[in-house]
Amino acid sequence: MSQAPKPKLLAALAGETFERPPVWFMRQAGRSLPEYRELRTRAKDFIAFCFNPEMAAEATLQPMRRFPLDAAIVFADILLIPQALGQDVWFEAGEGPRLGELPDLAVMRDKIESSTAHLANIGETLSRVRAVLEPERALIGFAGAPWTVATYMIEGRGSDRSGARTYAYQNPEKLDALLDILVESTARYLVMQAKSGAQVLKLFESWAEGLAEDVFQRIVINPHKAIIERVRAAGVDAPFIGFPRGAGALVANYAAQVPVQAVALDTQAPIALGTSIQAGGKAIQGALDNLLLRAGGPALDARIDTLIEAWAGGPYIFNLGHGVLPDTPIENLDRAIRRITGR
Amino acid sequence: MSQAPKPKLLAALAGETFERPPVWFMRQAGRSLPEYRELRTRAKDFIAFCFNPEMAAEATLQPMRRFPLDAAIVFADILLIPQALGQDVWFEAGEGPRLGELPDLAVMRDKIESSTAHLANIGETLSRVRAVLEPERALIGFAGAPWTVATYMIEGRGSDRSGARTYAYQNPEKLDALLDILVESTARYLVMQAKSGAQVLKLFESWAEGLAEDVFQRIVINPHKAIIERVRAAGVDAPFIGFPRGAGALVANYAAQVPVQAVALDTQAPIALGTSIQAGGKAIQGALDNLLLRAGGPALDARIDTLIEAWAGGPYIFNLGHGVLPDTPIENLDRAIRRITGR
Repeated sequence: MSQAPKPKLLAALAGETFERPPVWFMRQAGRSLPEYRELRTRAKDFIAFCFNPEMAAEATLQPMRRFPLDAAIVFADILLIPQALGQDVWFEAGEGPRLGELPDLAVMRDKIESSTAHLANIGETLSRVRAVLEPERALIGFAGAPWTVATYMIEGRGSDRSGARTYAYQNPEKLDALLDILVESTARYLVMQAKSGAQVLKLFESWAEGLAEDVFQRIVINPHKAIIERVRAAGVDAPFIGFPRGAGALVANYAAQVPVQAVALDTQAPIALGTSIQAGGKAIQGALDNLLLRAGGPALDARIDTLIEAWAGGPYIFNLGHGVLPDTPIENLDRAIRRITGR
Repeated sequence: MSQAPKPKLLAALAGETFERPPVWFMRQAGRSLPEYRELRTRAKDFIAFCFNPEMAAEATLQPMRRFPLDAAIVFADILLIPQALGQDVWFEAGEGPRLGELPDLAVMRDKIESSTAHLANIGETLSRVRAVLEPERALIGFAGAPWTVATYMIEGRGSDRSGARTYAYQNPEKLDALLDILVESTARYLVMQAKSGAQVLKLFESWAEGLAEDVFQRIVINPHKAIIERVRAAGVDAPFIGFPRGAGALVANYAAQVPVQAVALDTQAPIALGTSIQAGGKAIQGALDNLLLRAGGPALDARIDTLIEAWAGGPYIFNLGHGVLPDTPIENLDRAIRRITGR
């Protein structure tokens, strides 16, 4: 009997190396694709779109039909968790997320238990995608990391995070309690995603930048460790990718302490940082500049070659350092993915 | 005959260590001081204020009267250089800088020679300050680094720099030519500042963040090296402080290659990064979170103690990781400086 091929992404996460690394792109699904923009018009708002398993599964699969990508990532949003904890969340067209008043900690704590059920449709999206995705292509589930989600919950919108960072100094106990609530709800959410078909779990710490080392330890490293511990305690052994975006030299602290299987690197990660993480026994992911992907041309080809040459000697997953920009030309995506995969 | 005491800041830049490090704060002069806000009302606009030696010298000296700081930094702005090269620069109240159309490269190249004379009043400010500043307190001159200044020149205002970074990919020859012009004019400007009384020269690369390693080499490291070479060739031996703010792990590349006497670290620099730079033979400066200075309290005291304990074993200049925020309470500045100096 022939065995189903192991997805290349999972092999890389288990430490295998490839001359041509597995590849997927953050925000590969979404506004850069015309078929997504068409699909999106059918939902009344972005949150409703995320909670509709049929539409979200379709959005997840759209880039998989166009490109020979090694992984799909469930179409969802990091702000579904605050909503599940009782905070109002909506999206202003062309402006981004807006959140209502931060609920009392006690109110949110009482909703941890029910938050996973509130997010059941995301599990349904994963099941639908897994049912039709080819076995050699992996399916990734994800959540926003507690600090990043907390910045939105505290500031009520995207920001430079100085309000949330000030909150961290002025209300340390309250922030720690909020992070604890997010650790608990996020761990349960990720367990549910794994049980629904996610083979890899990614934690997006999109706003790790600008934090002093002691603060980074307290609000990034410790909560990530706590989430992974809880997910493992629930019997889920799916590999984790951690993405401490903007953490700079603190990425080394993160890689040394957080038991992820891969560290996703952002655009400014030096080559040597990546190889040192590989030498420490973890895979790496990244780190093409999304602005270069959008700009295209020979400089794009050259940078792709540089990254593969530098990092494919160890376990490596090709990706961007940040998400695909909405106005990225499709031909640049196509050109990059062909160069990476050789197909 | 008694010798004038060597300023503690210069001693640290020459490699000396102190149980209590020398201290100054970025933006120690300016809007956090009521006497500055009063003084500022006397000039018609911010550019005129910077070009008025009497007012600029007074602004430079104001924090020196209030606090036992080890250094004054000339009150000026990084956007005086584009103005000297023929680009319109003005400040919208409450919004920040605005710049007119980028002049032709040939036009700007022709103005390199005259740009230093255009900036002569900044030299006059330095002379006035040096004439009255106590000999044990150092005087710092500065300029914006070429890439940071170029981001404003290209985008016409403060921004997320994605326009300038895209320009770097799409117009590499034009960007390199612009950086060359800025290297030449900035080197001359710094030589003039040294000859006018600046004992230390600082290069502010305020927007080093988010750059891929190869781009960082080309647009940050190489221009910094070129400026310092030119300043040395002009016979100026004043020590340099380089501040690649936001460069993350690339700070190590910077420290290894740029012949500055000190590397200024931003808020997120890990302790180990600082000690490794010291071990490599350079002084370090930084890196208290300006949000923590504004927040105040016991957490501020504790972090000050941590930084001094961690870094004062090597050559170290106490400072922030970014500038003093305008709404920082004076009592927090006072509390911090007293704790650092023990006075």
